[in-house]
Amino acid sequence: MENPKIVEELKPFFEPKAVAIIGATNKKGKVGNVIFENFKRNKEQGIFKGNIYPVNPKLDEIEGYRVYKSVKELPDDTDLAVIAIPAPFVPNTMREIAEKGIKAVVIITGGFGELGEEGKKMEEEILQIAKENGIRVIGPNCVGVYVPDTGVDTVFLPDEKMDRPKSGPIAFVSQSGAFAAAMLDWAALAGIGIGKMVSYGNKIDVDDADLMDYFIYDDSIKVVTFYIEGVKDGRKFIEAAKRITKVKPVIALKSGRTEYGAKAASSHTGSLAGTDVIYDAVFKQTGILRAEDFEHMFDVAKAFAKCKLPKGDRVGIITDGGGAGVMASDAVAKFGLRMAELSEETIKYLKEHFPPHAVVGNPTDVVGDTDAQRYKYAIEAFVNDPNVDAIIVIVLFQVPLLDEDEIVEILAEYAKKSEKPILAVAMGGKKTEKYAKILEEKGVPVYPTPERGVRALAGLVQYAKYLEKLKGE
Amino acid sequence: MENPKIVEELKPFFEPKAVAIIGATNKKGKVGNVIFENFKRNKEQGIFKGNIYPVNPKLDEIEGYRVYKSVKELPDDTDLAVIAIPAPFVPNTMREIAEKGIKAVVIITGGFGELGEEGKKMEEEILQIAKENGIRVIGPNCVGVYVPDTGVDTVFLPDEKMDRPKSGPIAFVSQSGAFAAAMLDWAALAGIGIGKMVSYGNKIDVDDADLMDYFIYDDSIKVVTFYIEGVKDGRKFIEAAKRITKVKPVIALKSGRTEYGAKAASSHTGSLAGTDVIYDAVFKQTGILRAEDFEHMFDVAKAFAKCKLPKGDRVGIITDGGGAGVMASDAVAKFGLRMAELSEETIKYLKEHFPPHAVVGNPTDVVGDTDAQRYKYAIEAFVNDPNVDAIIVIVLFQVPLLDEDEIVEILAEYAKKSEKPILAVAMGGKKTEKYAKILEEKGVPVYPTPERGVRALAGLVQYAKYLEKLKGE
Repeated sequence: MENPKIVEELKPFFEPKAVAIIGATNKKGKVGNVIFENFKRNKEQGIFKGNIYPVNPKLDEIEGYRVYKSVKELPDDTDLAVIAIPAPFVPNTMREIAEKGIKAVVIITGGFGELGEEGKKMEEEILQIAKENGIRVIGPNCVGVYVPDTGVDTVFLPDEKMDRPKSGPIAFVSQSGAFAAAMLDWAALAGIGIGKMVSYGNKIDVDDADLMDYFIYDDSIKVVTFYIEGVKDGRKFIEAAKRITKVKPVIALKSGRTEYGAKAASSHTGSLAGTDVIYDAVFKQTGILRAEDFEHMFDVAKAFAKCKLPKGDRVGIITDGGGAGVMASDAVAKFGLRMAELSEETIKYLKEHFPPHAVVGNPTDVVGDTDAQRYKYAIEAFVNDPNVDAIIVIVLFQVPLLDEDEIVEILAEYAKKSEKPILAVAMGGKKTEKYAKILEEKGVPVYPTPERGVRALAGLVQYAKYLEKLKGE
Repeated sequence: MENPKIVEELKPFFEPKAVAIIGATNKKGKVGNVIFENFKRNKEQGIFKGNIYPVNPKLDEIEGYRVYKSVKELPDDTDLAVIAIPAPFVPNTMREIAEKGIKAVVIITGGFGELGEEGKKMEEEILQIAKENGIRVIGPNCVGVYVPDTGVDTVFLPDEKMDRPKSGPIAFVSQSGAFAAAMLDWAALAGIGIGKMVSYGNKIDVDDADLMDYFIYDDSIKVVTFYIEGVKDGRKFIEAAKRITKVKPVIALKSGRTEYGAKAASSHTGSLAGTDVIYDAVFKQTGILRAEDFEHMFDVAKAFAKCKLPKGDRVGIITDGGGAGVMASDAVAKFGLRMAELSEETIKYLKEHFPPHAVVGNPTDVVGDTDAQRYKYAIEAFVNDPNVDAIIVIVLFQVPLLDEDEIVEILAEYAKKSEKPILAVAMGGKKTEKYAKILEEKGVPVYPTPERGVRALAGLVQYAKYLEKLKGE
């Protein structure tokens, strides 16, 4: 364990004993109200276990909670402050926070560095207070932190504007607040579990590297995803990335790749996007997987969350639709993987158990009149075949004789007991969505197109190869 | 009008006066039962207006419908025969069909050329009968035809296995039956309207070229999509493609691109996939747009179905999330488009109407505290700007002050009255899905990621340029 200091420093952000909400108000829809309501609701539901201290000089009480007139009055167990007051008041509040001995601060408020010189000066002032007093700061100009397991939720968009995703082993870090909100909302619908979300806005202090170091020691997190537009301290980023990718996969969606994108990024977060080839090199060197878009990022993250790592790049494909098998085979080539050459035993076994019109090979096509049992023969054979490293199972649930519950059980069983990753692809409508959801709950990741399934698998292979390379060094 | 003969020949497939279902049965779930039930249901709902004649030597009646013992007994108005009897009986039935004078036949039955030499011989026999008697054949080994407007539905998967999409101006032709079924099911959920679906299986007669020629004259169809693994008669395909792309866009998803895919295609449909560069050249020469995957195909098709064609490739981007604007800008470069340079008038107008923290430029970022009115200023300015050819509007519905109904109305209004294509991007969860659906019903295509929105627009631009080039020739 190299760096537990960062764990102690960041812990109050994710599981505070007591949170002060500075700028809490009873005016519905206001930022200081939504954040207060988030914590209150989570406390009532028994999820947030800490104390909640609203701070507002003009109020005595909000919905049964005592309101503190100032930071000075706060009880001594306060270990996290969330600031949602206008920017000009923030530096002074930071001084009070320092005096009080609170060591973790989320500054939601915007109107700082992103607006120009004056704002930048305030940021410098805040940062200096933080440094002098050992305070860690997330923000300013951010949506902050969301942790479904502990009930921390500084996202100032109310439930009716944005759904909250369930918990899961994926961490999501975003340089863009609006994008973070959209992604949480999307993840809730897609059934993607997010264990921790951090949107750090102008990141004057806590940055990607700090979070990577924290996540090394966070057992609830199996894979870390990043949306970034630019990195300020390249060396720090690289060192931290190298540390975490030894133990956990990291996937980054870095925008501002092109000249157009870089220009847009510069007016968005002031990021110097840098030459894209440099980022490519850094990601490669540090074992970070680079995502093409957010679907790609979460497709791969979902695979890491649910699958074992493959021992190699030889893919076996099982399908009940020939066309989908062709598309998956194309994708295997496109994403740099290899089609497994099935062993003689596999071919013999399948020919014995299949009707003559089913296609034994790779892809193996159980064809449109398949039942679940025919799939089981194929999966069993592929799992036992030493020439197959990973398995893509395409299930078109539309075929007439396939018992949906049975194939779901078979897939879940083999995904659990096999040492090889098994990823499913299911294209279709309402019924497909229903069974895809059940499959995912049972630990099998499901993708809506053959291309996306194979691309997710390629992420697993790439990371497994990186770990192999490290071993050799 | 060059070729109305094909229209007369294929018309009975899509709007028959009377359909004979050969192999109709009362055994639930059997192919001959599902197809009968499809027509019966559609007739009861007033969608299918023709007569339905079940044919089965062993039955007198199915659910109140008289059953004909043989083809010979069929009434004379029969102009479409759907065959769902075992393969060995099909050639003789074809002879009876020829005697009866029926000129359109869908052979659902499998077990022909795809199984080997004996099946191929039967196919040749069937084809000879067809040629000698002026009969057009779709199939064998296919799911056939689906036309929601006329109630033709030979898809032998019952409702509980596969949803049916609503009607719309997209035609979909598929070489793979299972893929066709999965796509119909998917389209139903995605809200994509399909006007005509044809899955021709082994395509011994009616092929892609015939269908392209038919769709030229089909006013209900605005854009044609194809899933193909291989083309048998290259010259015929090229000539037909050139004819239709003069008047309507065609998008093809051609699999078997790679060595792996080509091998899989060969065991699926026996298609010689051919060198992929040849297909690329043919598509380019004939103005067919090539899709990377089915999401790409329908993303572009949806844009053609709803949008006007752009006059050029200069894209204007409006967003309420900076990060999404950066991603869209990257996509503009990636897909070979250009970022529009806004006119001075536009910049002046927006600066006058925007608060100082909103970002005037391209992308224009109305930022997270936007209301619908701020979007309206931006859209108005972009629509009037001669430097902007097409507009991508990103709406993150999560932002707190945006009235959802109002922004939907504004987008629909400008999409209707502007001469420029307007495509929307919305990332999020349940609420986003809801408003995306409303927007699409009002004529604005909506995409779930910036990349997919810009990629769809790139399809419009590519086809517009092809038409421009034709004009110059």
